[in-house]
Amino acid sequence: MAVYRPPEGRPVSPHLPFGERRDGAWYGKSIISVKQFSRDDLEYAFGVAKEMREMVARVGSFDLLKGKVLANLFYEASTRTASSFVAAMARLGGSTIQIHEVHYSSVSKGESLPDTIRTLECYADCIVLRHPQVGAAAQAVEVASKPILNAGDGIGEHPTQALLDLFTIESELGQIDGKTITMLGDLRFGRTVHSLSRLLAQYDVKLRYVAPDILQMPRDIVDELASLGVEQVPHDRLDDVLPETDVLYVTRVQKERFEDPADYENVRGAYVVDGETMLAAKEHMVVMHPLPRVGEIATEVDADPRAAYFRQMENGMYVRMALLAMVLGKA
Amino acid sequence: MAVYRPPEGRPVSPHLPFGERRDGAWYGKSIISVKQFSRDDLEYAFGVAKEMREMVARVGSFDLLKGKVLANLFYEASTRTASSFVAAMARLGGSTIQIHEVHYSSVSKGESLPDTIRTLECYADCIVLRHPQVGAAAQAVEVASKPILNAGDGIGEHPTQALLDLFTIESELGQIDGKTITMLGDLRFGRTVHSLSRLLAQYDVKLRYVAPDILQMPRDIVDELASLGVEQVPHDRLDDVLPETDVLYVTRVQKERFEDPADYENVRGAYVVDGETMLAAKEHMVVMHPLPRVGEIATEVDADPRAAYFRQMENGMYVRMALLAMVLGKA
Amino acid sequence: MAVYRPPEGRPVSPHLPFGERRDGAWYGKSIISVKQFSRDDLEYAFGVAKEMREMVARVGSFDLLKGKVLANLFYEASTRTASSFVAAMARLGGSTIQIHEVHYSSVSKGESLPDTIRTLECYADCIVLRHPQVGAAAQAVEVASKPILNAGDGIGEHPTQALLDLFTIESELGQIDGKTITMLGDLRFGRTVHSLSRLLAQYDVKLRYVAPDILQMPRDIVDELASLGVEQVPHDRLDDVLPETDVLYVTRVQKERFEDPADYENVRGAYVVDGETMLAAKEHMVVMHPLPRVGEIATEVDADPRAAYFRQMENGMYVRMALLAMVLGKA
Repeated sequence: MAVYRPPEGRPVSPHLPFGERRDGAWYGKSIISVKQFSRDDLEYAFGVAKEMREMVARVGSFDLLKGKVLANLFYEASTRTASSFVAAMARLGGSTIQIHEVHYSSVSKGESLPDTIRTLECYADCIVLRHPQVGAAAQAVEVASKPILNAGDGIGEHPTQALLDLFTIESELGQIDGKTITMLGDLRFGRTVHSLSRLLAQYDVKLRYVAPDILQMPRDIVDELASLGVEQVPHDRLDDVLPETDVLYVTRVQKERFEDPADYENVRGAYVVDGETMLAAKEHMVVMHPLPRVGEIATEVDADPRAAYFRQMENGMYVRMALLAMVLGKA
Repeated sequence: MAVYRPPEGRPVSPHLPFGERRDGAWYGKSIISVKQFSRDDLEYAFGVAKEMREMVARVGSFDLLKGKVLANLFYEASTRTASSFVAAMARLGGSTIQIHEVHYSSVSKGESLPDTIRTLECYADCIVLRHPQVGAAAQAVEVASKPILNAGDGIGEHPTQALLDLFTIESELGQIDGKTITMLGDLRFGRTVHSLSRLLAQYDVKLRYVAPDILQMPRDIVDELASLGVEQVPHDRLDDVLPETDVLYVTRVQKERFEDPADYENVRGAYVVDGETMLAAKEHMVVMHPLPRVGEIATEVDADPRAAYFRQMENGMYVRMALLAMVLGKA
Repeated sequence: MAVYRPPEGRPVSPHLPFGERRDGAWYGKSIISVKQFSRDDLEYAFGVAKEMREMVARVGSFDLLKGKVLANLFYEASTRTASSFVAAMARLGGSTIQIHEVHYSSVSKGESLPDTIRTLECYADCIVLRHPQVGAAAQAVEVASKPILNAGDGIGEHPTQALLDLFTIESELGQIDGKTITMLGDLRFGRTVHSLSRLLAQYDVKLRYVAPDILQMPRDIVDELASLGVEQVPHDRLDDVLPETDVLYVTRVQKERFEDPADYENVRGAYVVDGETMLAAKEHMVVMHPLPRVGEIATEVDADPRAAYFRQMENGMYVRMALLAMVLGKA
């Protein structure tokens, strides 16, 4: 029996697959993981993001990506991530195809992710993908000839979130080196803090993990960062580390994570940031949160100039503008 | 125990809160209620809306709001209102972030309206809000630093609808003063007729309310308009007032409003506008309806030049173009 | 009793109704059925589509329809059709109002299709309509004064799909005359193959229908094409016709079409295209599929240069760009 081999393949993908890129040359690349980013890459991206912020402050929008089309493919709900990509394209003069109701789309008829990706790249110049399964973005890159931006693949990665978090720390404090970053809440299941801590490992920082035992930072991440020489200390009370904290990164503790609801009630108060917390904090501490929040930061904190979480949202748009411009060859 | 006070607040909102605006200066303002509009304001807005209509007739679209981004935040279904805002932005060269599937968005994870508003204003220049609860738009204005346009808050207000209704009367008849406006159908629960009648009170008009007793105009509105000197007469039959009517504003009588279905069957025929009705009406009477209709205007009336309800829809786009241009400082 | 006749009708529709058009003059016309297209029309449309493909290859997007607004009205799910119209408008500099969640829109409150159409044409320059009922697009044309593009009306027609299919055959093979086109799979319920075969009847082609008996091409279509002199032969095995096939048009055989699941299991293997199939096929055969596929073409075929189904998707955008430009008077 003859073994079938396609007589000649489709043209070689113009995008450089993950791991084969040249530094500084983002054109055509996909963004799948924070592991793609060297410190030089981060500085370059943040430089572009700052230019985006200045341009938006001066003129609101400009036509850098005029005529470019983004496909925003969301297999999961995410108002803020989806909206910030739409806004980023709009402020660069480009447009977006929104596909965020998967029960509505042909994927509910059973189409495979690769087929959907290959269809959408017929129409669009770039695809943003949010998917509930780990590895979905990497699978998309396998078949895609246009850049894929991973906007979250299950409990895997969400690199644009980690980049905007790091960009916010730098924007708020002027530099990242030398700072003590305290992560608070659910550090076990929180994709956000995993990616951020990996990025922070490229800087000279101290990390503090404040969480109940069952929600502490996973062993593999702690070991990975330890091997890179990062000082990390777990705590179960915020009071212990608040005075030395430069950045307080708050995440939500979900009731559903606890087997016994009573355990949840016992710990929840210890992980709420309110006016009391702010009284004991450094004068220039930065409070961050990926949002949405549900009570873990009291609204009385919102008016405090140290509350950076809405500026963090805004930075998300600038970082995404930068990434879109970079992978589409305009930065 | 120390009382926490945020050391310094966020920058004072650049938008002028409801009630503190200067006449003629709409830049940065939110539009929450018809009570914001003086007769001068109405004339100014309608003048801008007429310019928008002329520009669309001449060139289709133009770049007055090029680069501006609208967030269209709909917690409730409304094809026509949402679509007309999208079209208004598009015809002014701007773009829109659509968020109209609330079960899909982060609000279904329990995010508060203020947090959603503060997030969206990081991305957009202006927010249109449709929400099922009375007061939602005012609550949004409390936290927003960008203009909010109320696109309906429950049984509260829907000011852009009232403005387009009034603009349609003026467009169809040349003037509003001296006219007799008859409102027909469900005047008790109809947000539309409440807002419109309040706006009409600024003109020299006569109002006729044709409805079954249980669906008559609420006492508080009748009293409010009476104190302003508006002549109002309730009726239960359209025949009584049809000959003197200049504007017949039809609304839907919903079966569900009646405890006894038989009561509904008894009255429904009295509130249907058909060819017979038009035979008895003035030669230049205007028939309006906020749409969607479900039988209360027979389709045989559609071809009658006095049927203004689709022109009314079109005027909605021009009025919304005018309001967007005004609050974004371009009119 | 007086018979009511509206005193004067609304202005005569500026769009030329189906059946009354002049060849070559597409401006303002609706596209409802493949029956509207003469061979000259097809050649003209494909010429424009080729220009669109060249412009996209050269500059990505251009401003031919800048300022134009499309209403994309989808009463049924269809990611690829909806997305390709959005992309087509974006690449021509226009914008789109998306209305694809009917449970969300006012139509779920019971609004009639004609009312929805007349509302949307107040906002948009053109309406794309996907609807589950045969004849919906024709019903829309009755009331519309702007062009309607039928994007599928139940088991009725889907003319833009048929046009892109035909355009793909011409693009892949250089010409259509003289070719043998084999349709495979569900030919009974497949709207796509019905419309395509009708268009092919305008060319000098041979048609081969490979399907299980219960899913063979309907009698009325076979008779219609026979009367036009088209050579058609039904088969139940692909092997019989593969060697002479220039175009293999694959469609999905749905399990639900079979009363006895065992019947489905018996036939399904005979309708799967895989590497074995390609080994026995002509060197320049073209494999097409309207997508989404669910197993009827093995993914090992994707890299074969004869696999044209993703180029077919891309052609969909160019054909839709051409049709939009034509009906909006810009081609």
